[in-house]
Amino acid sequence: MLRSCAAPLRSLGALRGPRGGACPPLCEPRPALRSFSSEKVIYKDFSIPNPSWSKDLRLLFDQFMKKCEDGSWKCLPLYKHGSLQRIQDFKTFFHDPKFTKEDVMTQTRLFTSSFEEGLGFEHAMFYNDVEKRTVCLFQGGLYLEGMPGFLHGGAIATMIDSTLGMSALIAGGIVMTANLNINFKRPIPLCSVVVINSQVDKVEGRKIFVSGNVQSADEKTLHSEATGLFIQLDPDKSLT
Amino acid sequence: MLRSCAAPLRSLGALRGPRGGACPPLCEPRPALRSFSSEKVIYKDFSIPNPSWSKDLRLLFDQFMKKCEDGSWKCLPLYKHGSLQRIQDFKTFFHDPKFTKEDVMTQTRLFTSSFEEGLGFEHAMFYNDVEKRTVCLFQGGLYLEGMPGFLHGGAIATMIDSTLGMSALIAGGIVMTANLNINFKRPIPLCSVVVINSQVDKVEGRKIFVSGNVQSADEKTLHSEATGLFIQLDPDKSLT
Repeated sequence: MLRSCAAPLRSLGALRGPRGGACPPLCEPRPALRSFSSEKVIYKDFSIPNPSWSKDLRLLFDQFMKKCEDGSWKCLPLYKHGSLQRIQDFKTFFHDPKFTKEDVMTQTRLFTSSFEEGLGFEHAMFYNDVEKRTVCLFQGGLYLEGMPGFLHGGAIATMIDSTLGMSALIAGGIVMTANLNINFKRPIPLCSVVVINSQVDKVEGRKIFVSGNVQSADEKTLHSEATGLFIQLDPDKSLT
Repeated sequence: MLRSCAAPLRSLGALRGPRGGACPPLCEPRPALRSFSSEKVIYKDFSIPNPSWSKDLRLLFDQFMKKCEDGSWKCLPLYKHGSLQRIQDFKTFFHDPKFTKEDVMTQTRLFTSSFEEGLGFEHAMFYNDVEKRTVCLFQGGLYLEGMPGFLHGGAIATMIDSTLGMSALIAGGIVMTANLNINFKRPIPLCSVVVINSQVDKVEGRKIFVSGNVQSADEKTLHSEATGLFIQLDPDKSLT
């Protein structure tokens, strides 16, 4: 399936920078608020702290930003809208013009950035090139409820797909999810902070096998484990 | 994991009716707008057609409503907030009071009903007791985007979890998802209508095995296939 690409694609745009934009290099010290304008589309980085972030999320974010200082980790910017570069990339693969009309594209929102501040997927992602590891810090808001007081399984699956897909995207360029297999072990309370870890396990031709898990911020609770199979669409566009 | 219960739990409340509410029996002819008040919480059924529904979704909805007339199918009401009964049910299982505070509960939204009309998960569910089959008619809005023009894999996983979980819930009462395994085969264009089919394959003790798929409205395209394992929390509360 070609849709796991929400975060991956958003980040692909981020890594390359919006066309005409001035996307800063990864791992650059980050200002309190940052946005980029490319033609009519405003690019705002949604992975920077905002008032809805809990103390736990801010603390973890600061710890990872500290790790970025020596270049071992990189912070991945996240955008609400796709970049025009992203749209152009997909036009290469999808020739039906109704899927890539730019006037429609500017009305859409990437699923993981589609809620108002604090209500949905508050998150930030970091990448370690040596370990080939992607980490997502995630605080799920009050609009992501499943059973009373806990995150919906679909919300967890969404962030797992996005994080594992990011690992695959960094390894293989534009990718699509072919399989996602999740074992849910412990429920995640609404508004709590969890850490999603993922790494590429192996690459066989165009198949990228990724695995990961979801842990509480204190690493004491294993909430979920997952594997993902991603298909590389264009091997020439690997980002590593 | 205990969170797949978003739709299941919402519907559990629906099947039983909010405490003090007047939830109509399943399969009753449905008015254009319907809401129920239970104490301070307003219950509005979000599975009835609204102006954002496409012609395809309305057509399918009408076809299933027609099937409800002889009692073979039942239409399942969907709510934005959980019922107090639902909260009470979960207090039985979760004793940490911070997860079940009613003032917090009233601020939350079930994930699949948390978007404004037309932007998120527009859907309706039907159940056939003889076939033990649940069908979800689903139109994913512009805020559920993954790759440009298509639904995010997490949005698809969310509706699959909700639909398979509904089958499990009807068979086993309060359930939690233990595993969700999805093969994504074809991307789903934003705002198109798909049909999610699911049925219970077998029950072993408290384990309920469910499978399903996602097809285009014309049944010509198989978008996804999935299996789910759900754990029955309270065997005495089976709804069948």
